[in-house]
Order: sequence, then structure tokens, then C-alpha cells
Amino acid sequence: MSDSKEKFLSDVFLTLREYISESSTSELVTKVSRPEKLKQLIPEIAPEGVSDEKLLSELRDILEHSVSTIHPLFVNQLFGGLDEAAWAGEVLSSLLNPTMATFEIAPAITVIEKRVVTELLDRMGFERGEGIMVTGGSNSNLLAMLCARTEYSPNIRLTGFGHNRFRVYASAEAHYSFDKAANITGIGTQNLVQVPANERGEMIPEELERILSADLKEGYVPIMVGATFGTTVMGAFDPVPKIARICERYKVWLHVDAAWGGGALFTNKHRHLVKGIQLADSVAFDAHKTMGTPLITSFFLTKHAGILRNANRGGGSEYLFHEYDNSDWDTGTYSLQCGRRADVLKFWLLWRAHGTQGLIRRTEHLFDLAQYATQEISTNPRFKLIHSNYLNVCFQVQPRDPLGDINSFTLKVRKALVREGRAMVNYAQRADGTIFFRLVFPNHRTEKVHVAQLLRIILETADRVDIV
Amino acid sequence: MSDSKEKFLSDVFLTLREYISESSTSELVTKVSRPEKLKQLIPEIAPEGVSDEKLLSELRDILEHSVSTIHPLFVNQLFGGLDEAAWAGEVLSSLLNPTMATFEIAPAITVIEKRVVTELLDRMGFERGEGIMVTGGSNSNLLAMLCARTEYSPNIRLTGFGHNRFRVYASAEAHYSFDKAANITGIGTQNLVQVPANERGEMIPEELERILSADLKEGYVPIMVGATFGTTVMGAFDPVPKIARICERYKVWLHVDAAWGGGALFTNKHRHLVKGIQLADSVAFDAHKTMGTPLITSFFLTKHAGILRNANRGGGSEYLFHEYDNSDWDTGTYSLQCGRRADVLKFWLLWRAHGTQGLIRRTEHLFDLAQYATQEISTNPRFKLIHSNYLNVCFQVQPRDPLGDINSFTLKVRKALVREGRAMVNYAQRADGTIFFRLVFPNHRTEKVHVAQLLRIILETADRVDIV
Repeated sequence: MSDSKEKFLSDVFLTLREYISESSTSELVTKVSRPEKLKQLIPEIAPEGVSDEKLLSELRDILEHSVSTIHPLFVNQLFGGLDEAAWAGEVLSSLLNPTMATFEIAPAITVIEKRVVTELLDRMGFERGEGIMVTGGSNSNLLAMLCARTEYSPNIRLTGFGHNRFRVYASAEAHYSFDKAANITGIGTQNLVQVPANERGEMIPEELERILSADLKEGYVPIMVGATFGTTVMGAFDPVPKIARICERYKVWLHVDAAWGGGALFTNKHRHLVKGIQLADSVAFDAHKTMGTPLITSFFLTKHAGILRNANRGGGSEYLFHEYDNSDWDTGTYSLQCGRRADVLKFWLLWRAHGTQGLIRRTEHLFDLAQYATQEISTNPRFKLIHSNYLNVCFQVQPRDPLGDINSFTLKVRKALVREGRAMVNYAQRADGTIFFRLVFPNHRTEKVHVAQLLRIILETADRVDIV
Repeated sequence: MSDSKEKFLSDVFLTLREYISESSTSELVTKVSRPEKLKQLIPEIAPEGVSDEKLLSELRDILEHSVSTIHPLFVNQLFGGLDEAAWAGEVLSSLLNPTMATFEIAPAITVIEKRVVTELLDRMGFERGEGIMVTGGSNSNLLAMLCARTEYSPNIRLTGFGHNRFRVYASAEAHYSFDKAANITGIGTQNLVQVPANERGEMIPEELERILSADLKEGYVPIMVGATFGTTVMGAFDPVPKIARICERYKVWLHVDAAWGGGALFTNKHRHLVKGIQLADSVAFDAHKTMGTPLITSFFLTKHAGILRNANRGGGSEYLFHEYDNSDWDTGTYSLQCGRRADVLKFWLLWRAHGTQGLIRRTEHLFDLAQYATQEISTNPRFKLIHSNYLNVCFQVQPRDPLGDINSFTLKVRKALVREGRAMVNYAQRADGTIFFRLVFPNHRTEKVHVAQLLRIILETADRVDIV
């Protein structure tokens, strides 16, 4: 590496480390710019390149016009924060830059990925099984549907669909990726049946059984139930023990989307939330949601060893997957992808750095934050608690005029919050139309003092909006 | 950030920069270890964490037991090398860690992604269109099949398949991801018809027409032809202008998998290779293959504005995709993914750093390497050139005994090469059973001197293996 490139990289790292240091005390989570302004700020692609100094200043512009997802008051999405060990793992991965297809090309990392998969299978109580890292929770839910289809009939891989009588089931509160997967797999979104949920957002098992039984009578072929641990909006956990009994009776693949709720696997106090997870045929788990790794750190885990190769395999890959001494170790044959990043390293370094007990302490801290927020919100008459479960706290702030439209008021406050940029918290809407703030706690850098600050900012903003 | 974390990150960056500096002069590309040895070396997950010093030493172990894909003699896969600006972009992306779903959460980067997509559409000669970054070339080919299915009948999204009469077409040399996509989409791999290729690995258009016509008579519904620019093994470019005319006549979606061959978009001298690309309905392009960015930097581009939202959309995503001033800028509605990394930054910084002319110079350097290797191989009687096109050079080294089995000899030499670790070059097999080395030139750090060195190493290894 030339001296000038050495200097460039040093300057980049220095800039990024300063950004990290400042992020915890910075007043702003986001500095909103309109697309038109950004289009002016961001240079056009040019025929000739720019100097390292210019490039560095452009990199600083990007930093400035981005949301600080590592800021303690970024509680907007189901991820956030920064862990130095995890980030180091991601940076290492981007430099090593292997493709996770064969052992030959990624020896140490393949061993690490297999070890992490085994650890996760163990944590879930799967005595046997296999797993693979995927490109996100959505991809995991897609893979589950493919496995279910393969399990029902391995021939579909060859022949395609002979009919459109397949049905898959998820609660009305499940993630939209089930809808996407029903589209992608050719099952059709009309054949993704929404099972009613109760007022806590949990799938009602009796409704599932009623629907399954009616569908069977009408000649449909139920192949999968997608239960959720940790729904996106309400943080609801579907009653998997009951659902599993139904799936067993009807011989239907049970997939548990624990992308968000799987965080509870890393707790002692709240472990009861994931009760029954060992009864699932497959599980989606996103370590980047509650563990503090950068995106993407997604796992698909199944107790059916062998299914992944059947569900995923493609012919004509001999150029890549050779027969050799260690070809049993090749992970590419388990994957929907060909080129695949070494996503495991960030999670591995994080886990090594903190140990299982450290991860448990960190996760229980997130629960403490949610509990604290719930308490502060319930005891303050200016707020109205809508729902609190897991790491999700849904609430409204009351306008002064009790007869005012709460939905449009919530939207006005949220808009002002984003515009002012001091905190980022998202909103959502319930099926009955109610709009509310959805506060979530995936961010390990958030402390109670930040929660208090956040609620204060929301009240101040509400007051200001209310006057206008 | 605490002082100790500051120090940890400094040490990590120092270690990585040393690794980069050493990689260009290092004697070894890979230090092979058996899985059993690695299982001993790599620690188990423990209840308690480890010190930063320990973590750093474990990180060094991972570096040591990985293949150096940035080494100039890593010419094994369709990617390799290191560009400092691109790497800085990837490191930046992992720190900013947005999800590329909404403009709100990734303002500057959304503008950058849209700009890069527009630049690529322009380079391909698409006057209108849209594009999205995907999780790899395989994902791009899957998305193409979905678009083709959606274009044929938007209703399939809702109803699923009513029959299994769909057919898709690709050459016998096409990537195995077409096979996977036929499986995933429910079309079935038996309905992915292999169109014969000529001895140069190019799809024979007359064969395509013959098959399409016969399939129509038998009641099949052809929906997509997948042509390839730059096949994996032979680097062949299918004759797209002729194929496009056929597709137009039969009203079939034409997808061009230019994941590898798209590099020729960034040349002046070799631009003729991608002739007709503007006739495609969609194109897959992987910048991480020939441009020198870390994995994954994949684009799906189509001239049919609007199709991506139709092909991808899922219901129930209102919690994420709000109606707001800038919601037109949200990219998540174009994507199969929900959480999505900011993969564009590495390509953006690379492109800014070198300018379009710089990227062209770099790509033409790769062509020069391929030409040089082809010449050295053809003029040396110890080698036998099998095929050379684009950046792929396929050849054999001759055993001393001219009656010896060339296939098993090639495998023996390759095995010794990997075991000794001084160079990494892959092998492949032709349909007629011939096994040969497949030398590829995606790596910008490779120079002619390295090519000469590589060929010398292969000859030396062959001699040693021949004696044994």
C-alpha cells in the first residue's frame, strides 16, 4: 500500500472514530435535508477522479447528512447502537472479503459460522438440525416457505406447481415478508391466510384450527404456519406451544419468525417469552436487531437436517462446489445465494467479547429500559399507554384539547420530532385506525437517562405543536 | 467511547492496515488448515467475555487462517483485490448502518443509490427505467424471473399458480442461480429449458427459436429468456441482438445476466462485447466482480419503470412505509428485502475516487492481463490453451507422459497448488468432461509480473506432482 493510501485510510478511521465519540453526546440524531438539497450537495459522477482530501470531505458530508443510528436516542427501528467488537468484526469481514460458499475459500470463518449455528440451535433446544445465515429476516421467512413446500413435495422443485391449492398461515400482525414470500414462491398472497389476533396482537390458536379445518374441507393444502415471536408493532409473542400442537395434528410446517423476539433467547428473566420455540420446524433470528451487530446478521435455523440442501440446491454449480476432502464443510449448498458475505464475524467477535453472560446482561438492560419507559408513560397523565410488551412500548401523547383528533396530532408531533432531529422514534397504526408512537429498545447505548430525555423532548414538541 | 475502546479500535485498524501492506508481498495466498485443526484453534463460546487484547489476538488468528482474497495471486473467483476508497465506503456503511428502506432513515445514501442506478441505466442505454441493489447476482436473476412472471400476469402475485406450463430459458452455460430461481418461484427446474450453446459457450439463437416455437405448440407459456454476458467458466457472451429479436417476436421478457460480463460496460476498447444490452428488459450487474468493491455490490436494472413495485410489494408494511413528503424516494418498496444494507457507498466512493475514466483504465488493465496470460499460455508448449474470452482464460498444463490422464493430472496439480498456498486459481469442467484451470482476472492488484509468476508456480507444481 502506498504511503498516500496509508494516510487516506488513517484519516478515514480517525474521522469515523471521532464520529463515534461525538455521537453519544451529539444533540442531533438526524439533520433532515430535502432530497433536492442533497442532490445539489452530492456531486455528480465525473470522468476524472478526485483527490483523497476531496474524497474525505465528501465522506464527511455523507456522515453529516445521515441519520445517526448509533445515537442513544435512535429508537426508531428494530436495530441501533454500536458495539465496538461487533463493528471490528464487520470491518474485518469487509477486508477479508471471502465468499461463504466453500470451506476452501473461507476456512476459519466457515468453522466459526458452523459453531455459531450450533450454539443457536442449542439455545433453542433443537437437538439436531442445521442452519445458514441469510440476507435478512425476510429472506429467512422465504426460506421457511420453501422448506415447507419441499417437505410437502420435493418434486415441486422440478415440476413447479401443478395447482394453486397451497395455503400458508400467519397472524394479521405478522411481518409483511410473509406476503412477499407467498408472492415469490408462487403460492400467491391470497393463499396467505391471516389468522385473527387478540387485542394483545397474539395469534388466536382456536381461530387457526378453525381455519385449517375449513380449508382442508374445501380441498386446500395447508403447508406452513408462520408464528411470530416479537411482532413488529406490538412486540407480541404468538402462543407457540398451542400452535405447535395444531401443526402437529395437521402435519403442517411450523416456522417461528423470531427475528425480533429472538432476543429473549439471551435472557434469564424473560426466557419464558420464547417458550415452545423448540417445537418449531424452523426459526428466523436476526442478531442485528437486539444483539447490537451491524446489519445484516440473520439466521435461518431448522431441526430438519438435510432440508436446506433439498430446498436450495441448483444444478450446474460444479464449477464452484468441487468434490474435495473438506467439501462436507461447504456452506454454499445450504444457501439461496451464491456469493455470500461473511456476516458471522461481527456476531462472533461480539459474542466472544461479552460472553453469553455479557449478552444476557445487555439484553436484560433493554428489558429494563422498556419497563422504565412503560412506567414513566403510565404514571404521567400527559401520556396514554396503548400497549407494552417485550421491547415495544406503544403510547400516545395527549393534546391539550381532549376533543382534538389524536391521530393527526400524533402525526404532527412525529413530523416535528423528525424535523428537529433530537430524537427518532417511529409511529404505527393499529387495525382499528389508532395511530401511536412505537418506542422500541434494541439500542444498547440507550440508558434510562435517555428514555427520560426522550419523553421530555416528546412532551416539549407536543406543546409546541399544540400551540401552532 | 471509552479510552479503552478507542485503543481497541486503533489496534484493530493498525492490524488491518498491516495486513493490507503485507498482502502484496506475502508469499502465501492461503495457509490451508484442516477443519479439525481450526476447530481446536478457534475458541468455544464462553459464559464470560474476553479482554480486548485477547479479542485482538483471536482476530489475528482469523486473519491468518483465511484466504487472502486481496492478494495479487488470488485469481480463483470472480472477485478479488482491494481498493482503498471502496473499502473506506464499506467501512463507512457499516458504521452509519442505516436500512435502505426509507429516505427518512438514509437521506444522503438514498440520493446516492438513485444517482448510481441512473448512471448505470445510462451506461446501458436504457432511456427510462429503474433499478435496485440486491443481495447478489443470484438474487438479481430471481428478481428478473419475478418481473417476467408479473409482466405476464400481475394476478399471479395474488392467486399463485394455476398451472405449471410456464417455461424459462437459459443456455447450458448459464449460472446455476437460474435453476435456483426456477425452484424458488414455483416454476420448477424442469421448466427451465437449457438452450444449447456453441463450442465457444454462446447460446445458439436458432436453437432458442426452435425450442420456443415447439414449446408454444405444446401449450407451454414462455415467459423469460435469461441470456448471459460473461459466463462463469468460459466468459462467453450470448448473442443478445439476435436473442432480443426472438424475444420481441415471442413477447418474452429478456433478462441479461451481466453480473460478470458487465465489466465490459466500463471499457472503450471492449465495449462491443455488451452490444445489444439496451435491448434487454432487465440486467444483472455485480460491481463487486470487476470493479474492486467488497462483496456484495449487486444491481438489478430494468427499463420497465414501475415493475419493481408490482413484482415486490407486500401488504402490511404501513408501519415502515409512511405517507410523507419524501415517500416517493423510499427505495424499500422496490426491494425483496426489508432490512437492507447501504451497499452503494463502496461503489460510490470508488467511482468518485477514480472517475469513470479511471474505472475504464482499470478495467482495460484486466483485459490486458487476460490477453497477456493467453499469449504466454499459447506460446508455451507445456500449456494447452482450451479457451480464452473476456477475462477468462481456460487452459491445461501437460503431464510429461502424453498418454497420462489429463483430468486427474489437472486435479492433482490444483490440489498441490492449494495445499502449498502460493497462488489460488480454480478449475472447471466442460460438458464433454474435460477438466482445466480457469484463470480469471477480476483483481486490480494483479500485474503482468504476477501472471508470469503464477504460470511459473503452476509449472513448478506440475513438475513436482508429475514426479511423485
